[in-house]
Amino acid sequence: MARIYLAGPDVFLPDAVAVGRRKKELCAAYGFEGLYPFDNEVDPHQGGEPVDRLIYRANEQMIRRADIGICNLTPFRGASADPGTVFELGLLIGLGKRVFGYTNVASDLLERAQGFDRLVHDPVQNIWRDSNGMSVENFGNADNLMIDNSLIEHGGHPMVRHGASREALFHDLNGFEQCLRLAAAPR
Amino acid sequence: MARIYLAGPDVFLPDAVAVGRRKKELCAAYGFEGLYPFDNEVDPHQGGEPVDRLIYRANEQMIRRADIGICNLTPFRGASADPGTVFELGLLIGLGKRVFGYTNVASDLLERAQGFDRLVHDPVQNIWRDSNGMSVENFGNADNLMIDNSLIEHGGHPMVRHGASREALFHDLNGFEQCLRLAAAPR
Repeated sequence: MARIYLAGPDVFLPDAVAVGRRKKELCAAYGFEGLYPFDNEVDPHQGGEPVDRLIYRANEQMIRRADIGICNLTPFRGASADPGTVFELGLLIGLGKRVFGYTNVASDLLERAQGFDRLVHDPVQNIWRDSNGMSVENFGNADNLMIDNSLIEHGGHPMVRHGASREALFHDLNGFEQCLRLAAAPR
Repeated sequence: MARIYLAGPDVFLPDAVAVGRRKKELCAAYGFEGLYPFDNEVDPHQGGEPVDRLIYRANEQMIRRADIGICNLTPFRGASADPGTVFELGLLIGLGKRVFGYTNVASDLLERAQGFDRLVHDPVQNIWRDSNGMSVENFGNADNLMIDNSLIEHGGHPMVRHGASREALFHDLNGFEQCLRLAAAPR
């Protein structure tokens, strides 16, 4: 049975355990085993190492054991996805795993960036710049081009965009289930 | 001569070319060849593929050619690093490259998160939560624990933190040069 690493900021939710359980049940319904990082048991007294180092190692080992990654790339504390999840997406790809990703916000990165900063359009170069003068990507992607395109190159599908309600932003699993369907479909 | 991939939001600067030139000169001074993603030539008419896909492929190929990565993890449009750079950090590690990282902001993630949102402390669990109820890491790290610990595990050194002036936030290369010193030192 293929193993799917369940990457996402879900681990920060007050009901992180329940969300992980639902995701693992959905994985099972599609014939997969879900690996949820929050399930890693870390012994804080193990060899005098700091807890966060032990968590890192446990997550990396879980990723190495996985065959596939499904990443929750919903914008998190800003215009872009949770950086821990984005790191894991890169790691999964470097290790040769197939990857899928979803976001519960349907808008483009540029549109969201406009909500966080006063962007200025340079008509000569046709470039949007933020208040630091730094360019903002305008490729119609959901996030940074490395994220969107990595999913196409190493999973075969663009990021699944599902506009969830504000209240269900981190609990709506429609996009997640769509990733499971894509993972289960014949290539 | 070992090749260093120069990851960072530097590519979004108005003077991205000049910054890349300075970084490559510093690499050469320490006996390395710097690979700067902005130098990738992308032909927008190549095979009808979208430009952002071609940029992705060129960057990934450049990363595969590198021996080492030095990542500019200065907070970018929020409390955390640029997601494109964080993705590349994960990819570098998955591909077995040695990695170093620096930030031009010396503060902890938790401290910065408090500047972007009204965090609430749960004294029973000793956890900080944001306005969505999601926990905020409090390990004394500069960013998400996956980022800080990946550098220790796969480079041998914690993230270099250098408090640059506001004006030089994306141009100060002291932290970058410290990474070069670490990369050049005998292990």
